[in-house]
Amino acid sequence: AFKHKACGRVFSGIQPTGVPHLGNYLGALENWVSLQNQYPSVLYSIVDLHSITQPQDPAQLRTNILDMAASLLACGIDPERAIMFQQSKVSEHAELSWILSCLTSMPRLRHLPQWKMKSKQKHEGSVGLFTYPVLQAADILLYKSTHVPVGEDQVQHLELAHDLARIFNNSYGDLFPEPQALLSSTQKVKSLRDPSAKMSKSDPQTMATITITDSPDAIALKIRRAVTDFTSEVTFDPRTRPGVSNLVTIHAAMAMMSVEEAVSQARGLDTGAYKKLVAEAVIQKLTPIREEIERLRSDRAHLEEVLDRGNRRARELAAPVLRDVRQRVGFC
Amino acid sequence: AFKHKACGRVFSGIQPTGVPHLGNYLGALENWVSLQNQYPSVLYSIVDLHSITQPQDPAQLRTNILDMAASLLACGIDPERAIMFQQSKVSEHAELSWILSCLTSMPRLRHLPQWKMKSKQKHEGSVGLFTYPVLQAADILLYKSTHVPVGEDQVQHLELAHDLARIFNNSYGDLFPEPQALLSSTQKVKSLRDPSAKMSKSDPQTMATITITDSPDAIALKIRRAVTDFTSEVTFDPRTRPGVSNLVTIHAAMAMMSVEEAVSQARGLDTGAYKKLVAEAVIQKLTPIREEIERLRSDRAHLEEVLDRGNRRARELAAPVLRDVRQRVGFC
Repeated sequence: AFKHKACGRVFSGIQPTGVPHLGNYLGALENWVSLQNQYPSVLYSIVDLHSITQPQDPAQLRTNILDMAASLLACGIDPERAIMFQQSKVSEHAELSWILSCLTSMPRLRHLPQWKMKSKQKHEGSVGLFTYPVLQAADILLYKSTHVPVGEDQVQHLELAHDLARIFNNSYGDLFPEPQALLSSTQKVKSLRDPSAKMSKSDPQTMATITITDSPDAIALKIRRAVTDFTSEVTFDPRTRPGVSNLVTIHAAMAMMSVEEAVSQARGLDTGAYKKLVAEAVIQKLTPIREEIERLRSDRAHLEEVLDRGNRRARELAAPVLRDVRQRVGFC
Repeated sequence: AFKHKACGRVFSGIQPTGVPHLGNYLGALENWVSLQNQYPSVLYSIVDLHSITQPQDPAQLRTNILDMAASLLACGIDPERAIMFQQSKVSEHAELSWILSCLTSMPRLRHLPQWKMKSKQKHEGSVGLFTYPVLQAADILLYKSTHVPVGEDQVQHLELAHDLARIFNNSYGDLFPEPQALLSSTQKVKSLRDPSAKMSKSDPQTMATITITDSPDAIALKIRRAVTDFTSEVTFDPRTRPGVSNLVTIHAAMAMMSVEEAVSQARGLDTGAYKKLVAEAVIQKLTPIREEIERLRSDRAHLEEVLDRGNRRARELAAPVLRDVRQRVGFC
């Protein structure tokens, strides 16, 4: 039977949406920073091949890739500990994806909930939108990754990667570890304008989303305007009081304390006064990140150099694995 | 408006099924040999990435790739005039295929007749079997090919390549010529056991198919046993007399004469005697090819060297095109 390597390897990807918002930061990036200190080998990929499953403006996409790289560094990703790289620069992702697509049945993909949801919105969508979970599986398996931090909406995609590892191993001999989910316990950050929805980059209401490069004034304004309710006391009950509870979540996460501590700090304050406290915590946490992003953005050559080095290191890991795959499949 | 280059480029691919049969030889390979003398730039690819859309035994696949390379050379493909290469050794095919898949709508693929036919046989098939026409389009466009020899069953796949060239050019600026079909006028060779079906490698009846490495005795036996009818005179009428007409087709093609000449040579012979004449023509044509294949097979290092050089030359053409694609899409 196949034994996992004793030393684990973490893989995760993020789409190049440009500068992340608070939801990305608290939902994924903070966790990424802590994982790079827990695992001996960590890869974080800016997954531009995935981003083109939706139409993209090419110049904007290029800028977004560099902005995401700057943001990851500013948020604390250490390129000495984690290999940060651009997916499309490692040709092995697309190659392994093709091979795995020949091991994936059509019904298997059709039943994934993301396709059901997205294809309804997009009137059937592109072939890339349909097959991207296979590319995700390739992303993970290409590095023989053992652990993948995922949100709940991605659990079934990781199961596909898991199944494809098993199918490949059964057909061609043990090669891939079956990757395990690292379900993060982080709270989901909600829209400031509609606390029933997730905070999202694509929200048409600009006041709904705090981007991590927002100015202190913009942050203060957005939080002042955040939808709450008609009770002035601050309590934490996401089900009945989603608006104010979202602020408590943000406050606790930004000031690095528990929800209980955040609520106790709010004692005696009405929501108006509490919003000032929350805004201060957000501004304090994000100001050094914003300044670092600005600094990194002003030195594009350095940023490209850091990415290039990550791309090279990723290729060095990917190449021998794909060589092995090719040999087992019979290509050489 | 976009103008095609004055100098055309031909691209075609063949699956690594091992040594070709007579139907492959007369249906495609003879035409390939003549095209290499007509066009200034010609690429012939052994498309192993396509072959894995059906299950393959890895060791057999490796042997089949080398046998196909030996057969192409023995049939007259000149590696100085045509770039003969192995698809999986040029990573750009899979990369461009991913990008094009993001420009292909799901209904476009679902309506292709090959998928309708194959997926019914195979109970839904793999994702690779569904998306392989996109990989075919990538194969063609990657070299900015202008002309593609195709059988009738592939015309709609070439239309997809044509449409994807147009869609890409509209989105990202003119880059790809819209490739044109070279419909060959060659006669289809039929099964010797069932002249209503195409001659096929996978035919379970071994007497149905002549492989180009068959011994003279095997060829004579298979033609002696070929299904004809109860009329002893030799005439050419594929509709009412498919068996004997198939022999006339083979005879004419092998002896490089017209069907009328073949029929006139058969005057006064019954089908039994005519079969001897056909067998002689086939044996005479195939003997030097069989001997050359045997010689090439015995020197595997040389064969691999020829393929390696083709792979290198293909990569040299593919790399700048994919670089251009990547830049236009916004990856760099």
